[in-house]
Amino acid sequence: MALKYPGPKRPINHPIPKKEPPKKLINKSNMGQTLENDVSITNDYYLETKRAVVYKKPTPIQIVHVNYPARNKAKITEAYYKIPSTTDFNGIYKGFYIDFDCKETQSKTSIPLSNIHPHQIEHLRRITAAGGIGFLIVYFAYYNEHYYLPFEVLYKYYMASLEEGRKSIPYQVFKDEAYRIPFSYNPRVDYLSVIDEHILPTFKIKGHE
Amino acid sequence: MALKYPGPKRPINHPIPKKEPPKKLINKSNMGQTLENDVSITNDYYLETKRAVVYKKPTPIQIVHVNYPARNKAKITEAYYKIPSTTDFNGIYKGFYIDFDCKETQSKTSIPLSNIHPHQIEHLRRITAAGGIGFLIVYFAYYNEHYYLPFEVLYKYYMASLEEGRKSIPYQVFKDEAYRIPFSYNPRVDYLSVIDEHILPTFKIKGHE
Repeated sequence: MALKYPGPKRPINHPIPKKEPPKKLINKSNMGQTLENDVSITNDYYLETKRAVVYKKPTPIQIVHVNYPARNKAKITEAYYKIPSTTDFNGIYKGFYIDFDCKETQSKTSIPLSNIHPHQIEHLRRITAAGGIGFLIVYFAYYNEHYYLPFEVLYKYYMASLEEGRKSIPYQVFKDEAYRIPFSYNPRVDYLSVIDEHILPTFKIKGHE
Repeated sequence: MALKYPGPKRPINHPIPKKEPPKKLINKSNMGQTLENDVSITNDYYLETKRAVVYKKPTPIQIVHVNYPARNKAKITEAYYKIPSTTDFNGIYKGFYIDFDCKETQSKTSIPLSNIHPHQIEHLRRITAAGGIGFLIVYFAYYNEHYYLPFEVLYKYYMASLEEGRKSIPYQVFKDEAYRIPFSYNPRVDYLSVIDEHILPTFKIKGHE
């Protein structure tokens, strides 16, 4: 029987790096799931450490038919996805209402505005007008970079797109007018650090004195 | 041919009052729907008049099976209702984060605490600790009365129920420690008027100066 000698030590919490799956295997229907998952893990961490209470809203579903195979048991047998009328995430941080959505792009050069529904923009406009903090978390997969895009910047490019016809926000805009979100093990996508550093110092709510 | 004379004039926007359906026809599975509907109409009114941005979250659904009868077309063929981990309503009013649920009872004497999930209470506890305004809207159908129950009062009776075993909040508590919500045509269930009159005058958020 051969003796097993211990191999070179690997530090705890430093798992064997996994190979990236080949590009061809990327399933478009899952696009955005990794980002949403990372943000949800971040929110769990914020909740546990009592930093913020932020939840993802359930996906809106149009229910057409429900069976009741037993008392107190309902089985939905026909339903469809609805287009969300608001953003996916909202919550409270330091007493401020925050509201955002997550968007992911594979592009090197820009994120298409078609990724963002007009009623999501209208929702964020109302939220910021009411004294909330509205933004997008945008993930450029090619660069593996997360950005905090303030609603005001999104709105500027959205309004310009209606007039001039440019249908995307260039990557360079994120470099110049958005904030890079630190990405680490925990918290994963630390968007609150951006709010602390760049948003709250100049943030004012009408009526709060 | 008989001439048609105009009948007595009915003011515009004053539809013919409908008879209440007989009590026997009340379907328990719809209980709470009228209240939720009234609150949603109220929220629509607040949104249109730019007073507040408050939405009902979609019902959380566990999706088990989806068919794709065509490209870009998804039909959910097996799904189940999940127990909500938060409350049904949240939003922003005058820059404040507000969060609540709606509960309805047919009882003359009390509302059973079994109507309120423990994780909803935990959620409201976190929200109020983070500087949000948390409450319940409780409808006593027998009296046709709506009440704003501040989270602090709910929590007091909830904690007492764990020790003493009283499993409901008496109607008298609503008379003494909750606030009656004005009910009218528009806004329907005017809970913001209670927040204006009774909550905001003494409300302080840590960290907001």
